[in-house]
Amino acid sequence: MPNLSLRAAEMPASPIRRLVPFAEKAVKRGIRIYHLNIGQPDIESPQEFWDALAHSNLKYVAYSHSAGNATLRAKAIEMYRKKGIELKDGELMVTTAGSEAIRFAFMACLNPGDEVIIPEPLYANYLGFAVESGIKVVPITTRIEDNFALPPIAEFEKKITQKTKAILICNPSNPTGTIFGQDQLEALRDIVLKHDLFLFADEVYSEFNYTETQLFSVLQLEGLEKHAVMIDSVSKRFSLCGARIGFLCSRNPEIMTTALKFGQARLSPPTLEQIGVEGAMDAQQSYFDAVKKEYKARRDIISEALACIDGALCPQIDGAFYATVRLPIDDSDKFSQWLLEEFSFEGATVMFAPATGFYATPGLGLDEVRIAYVLNCDDLRASMAILREALKMYPGRTCEQ
Amino acid sequence: MPNLSLRAAEMPASPIRRLVPFAEKAVKRGIRIYHLNIGQPDIESPQEFWDALAHSNLKYVAYSHSAGNATLRAKAIEMYRKKGIELKDGELMVTTAGSEAIRFAFMACLNPGDEVIIPEPLYANYLGFAVESGIKVVPITTRIEDNFALPPIAEFEKKITQKTKAILICNPSNPTGTIFGQDQLEALRDIVLKHDLFLFADEVYSEFNYTETQLFSVLQLEGLEKHAVMIDSVSKRFSLCGARIGFLCSRNPEIMTTALKFGQARLSPPTLEQIGVEGAMDAQQSYFDAVKKEYKARRDIISEALACIDGALCPQIDGAFYATVRLPIDDSDKFSQWLLEEFSFEGATVMFAPATGFYATPGLGLDEVRIAYVLNCDDLRASMAILREALKMYPGRTCEQ
Repeated sequence: MPNLSLRAAEMPASPIRRLVPFAEKAVKRGIRIYHLNIGQPDIESPQEFWDALAHSNLKYVAYSHSAGNATLRAKAIEMYRKKGIELKDGELMVTTAGSEAIRFAFMACLNPGDEVIIPEPLYANYLGFAVESGIKVVPITTRIEDNFALPPIAEFEKKITQKTKAILICNPSNPTGTIFGQDQLEALRDIVLKHDLFLFADEVYSEFNYTETQLFSVLQLEGLEKHAVMIDSVSKRFSLCGARIGFLCSRNPEIMTTALKFGQARLSPPTLEQIGVEGAMDAQQSYFDAVKKEYKARRDIISEALACIDGALCPQIDGAFYATVRLPIDDSDKFSQWLLEEFSFEGATVMFAPATGFYATPGLGLDEVRIAYVLNCDDLRASMAILREALKMYPGRTCEQ
Repeated sequence: MPNLSLRAAEMPASPIRRLVPFAEKAVKRGIRIYHLNIGQPDIESPQEFWDALAHSNLKYVAYSHSAGNATLRAKAIEMYRKKGIELKDGELMVTTAGSEAIRFAFMACLNPGDEVIIPEPLYANYLGFAVESGIKVVPITTRIEDNFALPPIAEFEKKITQKTKAILICNPSNPTGTIFGQDQLEALRDIVLKHDLFLFADEVYSEFNYTETQLFSVLQLEGLEKHAVMIDSVSKRFSLCGARIGFLCSRNPEIMTTALKFGQARLSPPTLEQIGVEGAMDAQQSYFDAVKKEYKARRDIISEALACIDGALCPQIDGAFYATVRLPIDDSDKFSQWLLEEFSFEGATVMFAPATGFYATPGLGLDEVRIAYVLNCDDLRASMAILREALKMYPGRTCEQ
């Protein structure tokens, strides 16, 4: 038979996927699993989403415009305007979720062999999109002791080569919950202009900001109109992960024209879900206030619980609904597997995402796990109690509990 | 500012897109346009689709499995079984429409620089997916005089180089309506085995077969288990173009494992639409019988109308809902634009897709247009009357009407 492509071999497997068979076996043994391993929120979507769908009265489901329905684009532009981000018609395109927006940005801006610098720990699927586009991810390591803040500009300079074409940040960050503020973005602007790079910002967690300061978007950086690309999604904002509706935004008309050509090749994003999302955009501020209050309470539960565990370190978490935390363990992959295979406490265990999957640099993240705090407060408290008990028993613990 | 990628420059624009501004201006002048330019069916989707959606009772829209919901996969496997195609679990994956299935097949099997042979006229978006994957499309020309049948194997042999890695057919064919039968597929099998190639078959129009012979799927070719990849979609089958639900099927486990890795990177296909499609799969045979009868009537209208136009040639149309037809014109792009810009008959005109956009070989298709017969019979008759009148007036006609 013919060989598959080199891309097939290079394509990374999902960092969580390896653990799924162990989780399935645990369930078969009757063990309850608290899933802290995936960013699937459990919050209800706005009622306006369901109402818009129920009232759509379609007879068949037609293609939408390749850039998305004009009415949805107008609503999204209005949403950004309220956040202080001014976008014109044509500067926003509806994509099949944030995933497609990132892929279109990579494909439009980067050639095979080009390098993109990404702070790590990073959203693991960036590595997959890089393989698809033939580009090289150059990680720049952030440290848990610094609350995963961006390294000084001098560190970025060291990473820049002839091949460097872009920097990509996730803000607020999956997997760390870090928010990069205006000062850090302005520092990035300077390096981007100096070296003539693109700056991609994945802002899909923009609603999840637990600080008093408004999130500063890459689109608010002056002088970066041609360089900045913002990626957004409704997956997290409205608990619509499966709706597959995102946005690609840039004031660079060449990028938008090219992205639309990629969009035309795939015809359209999902039509029904666009109709629902257009409704969801009418959700009141009270919806977001309630969501944010809930996540803030959840964040506090995990950070307080971790503060009481010897050898654990939970950094400051300002946004998103993730934390990358240090645990007193030898190997986060082994530990996560052991939790599913060999441990249970009162009939339950907990599933984490080993942080090794979020570092592009081999060997990093061995004593870190990513926690997605997407369970209700009671379940989160139970999960943290399980973690405490597990660390007493785990043979590879590095510190007595 | 930094330069965009080479892909951005190579990416073809949609062959119809150029005409859209002329169509918009015509509408502003109060002209009614009969759209024969896009394969957007007007048939109602099965009621079971809407019922399944209405009864889903979700509180939020979660990611599905990256290979699609297990229940939908089981239903799809059952659908193929009824057609005589046996697939096991793991040999079928739900994709974000046929577009993604093609992209995953290209990415999994082909390296940048590899060549794929595609009979032309071809579905224009294959060219875009080829640019995204960095592969080269090598067209093999089929002729209207032969009803666009596949050329003899000797012609394929001439196209094969060291770089050839696959052959892609669309069966039934968009844009020609041709059906490649078992004998033609068996000839392709021989060349595929001889040269160790992949054989991709885009079978998204498989329900639209107006012959007495059942469609022969690439998956029914014996001895091609490792080489054959079938692409399908519900877009046309259930008038669900905007649902973005397709299938990638292969008995080669390496291809399916790799496709799932690409699938994991983009997380999941649309969840709500999967629920609806699972319902639609319960549609009775009477639904398809009615749809087929309607399209057959439409096909007869256009082929009879064209038979009465001097210098026109409508080939035998066996499937799909397209015809690529010859008209007595100098240039199908000019003619299509003239229809929108300068002509109307009783307040209406007609929009075609110039066939030039469906040939990868420059200069071909100048006297051909693609007709998508997706309008009701009355509108189709009106469209053909307009065409007849237009050909009397068009300054670039090549034959007196």
